[in-house]
Amino acid sequence: MKKFDFEEERVKQEIAKLGAKRVLIQLPEGLKPEATRLANIVEKAGALPIVSADPCYGACDLATAAAQSLNADLIIHYGHAKLLKHEPVPTVYVEARATVNVDAAVEKALPLLEKWRKIGLATTVQHVQTLDEVREFLLRAGKTVIIGDAGRMNYPGQVIGCDYSNAKSIAKEIEAFLFIGGGKFHALGVALSTSKPTIIADPYEKRAYSINEEARKVLKQRWASIEEAKKAKIFAVLVGLKIGQKRLETALTIKEKLEKTGKKAYIFAIREITPEILMEFPKVDAYVNTACPRVSLDDASKFQKPVLTINEARVLVGEISWEELCRKGLFES
Amino acid sequence: MKKFDFEEERVKQEIAKLGAKRVLIQLPEGLKPEATRLANIVEKAGALPIVSADPCYGACDLATAAAQSLNADLIIHYGHAKLLKHEPVPTVYVEARATVNVDAAVEKALPLLEKWRKIGLATTVQHVQTLDEVREFLLRAGKTVIIGDAGRMNYPGQVIGCDYSNAKSIAKEIEAFLFIGGGKFHALGVALSTSKPTIIADPYEKRAYSINEEARKVLKQRWASIEEAKKAKIFAVLVGLKIGQKRLETALTIKEKLEKTGKKAYIFAIREITPEILMEFPKVDAYVNTACPRVSLDDASKFQKPVLTINEARVLVGEISWEELCRKGLFES
Repeated sequence: MKKFDFEEERVKQEIAKLGAKRVLIQLPEGLKPEATRLANIVEKAGALPIVSADPCYGACDLATAAAQSLNADLIIHYGHAKLLKHEPVPTVYVEARATVNVDAAVEKALPLLEKWRKIGLATTVQHVQTLDEVREFLLRAGKTVIIGDAGRMNYPGQVIGCDYSNAKSIAKEIEAFLFIGGGKFHALGVALSTSKPTIIADPYEKRAYSINEEARKVLKQRWASIEEAKKAKIFAVLVGLKIGQKRLETALTIKEKLEKTGKKAYIFAIREITPEILMEFPKVDAYVNTACPRVSLDDASKFQKPVLTINEARVLVGEISWEELCRKGLFES
Repeated sequence: MKKFDFEEERVKQEIAKLGAKRVLIQLPEGLKPEATRLANIVEKAGALPIVSADPCYGACDLATAAAQSLNADLIIHYGHAKLLKHEPVPTVYVEARATVNVDAAVEKALPLLEKWRKIGLATTVQHVQTLDEVREFLLRAGKTVIIGDAGRMNYPGQVIGCDYSNAKSIAKEIEAFLFIGGGKFHALGVALSTSKPTIIADPYEKRAYSINEEARKVLKQRWASIEEAKKAKIFAVLVGLKIGQKRLETALTIKEKLEKTGKKAYIFAIREITPEILMEFPKVDAYVNTACPRVSLDDASKFQKPVLTINEARVLVGEISWEELCRKGLFES
């Protein structure tokens, strides 16, 4: 298990402060193995712990409906920073900062950044506390370093699966991004949003590598999906049922625009967008996904039909060009 | 596509009567291919149709939360009879009665019923309208026929995935059951609930066969699951988040009883119980499922850990014996 700060003392204090008697524990998939241990902490603090077993990929999916349905008086949401402006159920966010040292990975990234002098930094909430030290390191190596803060995220330099505003806000000033974190998911988002060379420094694997070839493949695939969707006659516009993913008005607008171009479009409400669920609708030729855009991008090969994002649907109906979308970045909102 | 009565005229009338402007359409998996056609009917009636794409296996899973979240003023629920006593959102049930003729299948069942004279009838809501004619046929063949009505279902002889009270209410008076319907799912439930010889007359495949060998296999597997769970140290008691499957108080009682026998037990809230979701919790040795008992019984081979039903947990803690549970029927509540 990777090591993270679960802020056990603060959790106990928050439970005591609120006098919470029934606490819903929500964890992303990577932290779910910790569920029983974290439940023990809640129990010792005098509350009944209920673990939300449902999939959770972001703070957009805060389990408020489950909490209300179970009369929980507190949600402890692990692994993501606060995203919703207002929570209908009292919520404590435990960001699960990683305790792993990033030095070795950043050192290995240095040769890959050789060609560029102006470097932008980006990371997930797990590693935001390392950005200052990474900046110092790069400065000593003769780089200019910029950390973006567009004001939408909780921390400068922080990105989440669908929001790269911090990276985009500095894209014009830098030559390449250094992303600190494990896996390709968020770094891919940086590359797709900014079209900048993006190097991953992965502190878990203690290695560094470029994500740009992957980003090129994704772009190629997205273009092909839009082209395929152009031939589609019947569309379903997906409305997410997760609290931070519900965009019914946007979906209705897209339906209208599709129908103006001669397509037939239906509104589908959905919680988890999976290939299995969409396969139940053989008469639908293509989907527009107004919920989580990463489902469209990252799982594309698993879906039998095109599943466009909101922005890709705007390309489809001729509102913007593909080139313009690429220039603005796939996650522009 | 099998043929069903979608009651299109009544749907239009109900929409007009309620003045519904936004209608959530909910369908079980088998009817989902009809979604776009049924949406067209709603649209022609002057309302915005929204199709619930989420999995739906019963009227216990009425999409009231989705409807409320999307401000739908009517749910049209297809394929199941009313189950909840009260719906928080106005709901029209379209039972999707099958139009298929059952004569050929029932004729083929006759030789399989040769040994028995007193026959009980059971079926799903799709075929309840055929029971009178099936009874007439069996009477002419010299049988005594009984159709049970325990008062819990909407129609005499009707069974649903988790409620066989109509079959059980006559089990002592009959020698064998004839089940009218497609697939093994409901007939298996009849056999498991009554321990009676159960013959399926499948009108879609126009064939008849016994389900008792399958039932014996399921019982053997369930016994093995209970035995395996006896060795487990850490349990998670699953509470379903679907409106008709939520049994938090029962789950809390089971947790308490498990802990009295020296086990450690946690409460997990869950929407869809799948092997993938449970695999995220390697520290849990066994589950008790207070949501849909059929997930435990029918998907047992897919789960890596025992997933006991409420009744099986009662065997585990020594409240009743396995033999007693088999005698009472697996779905006794």
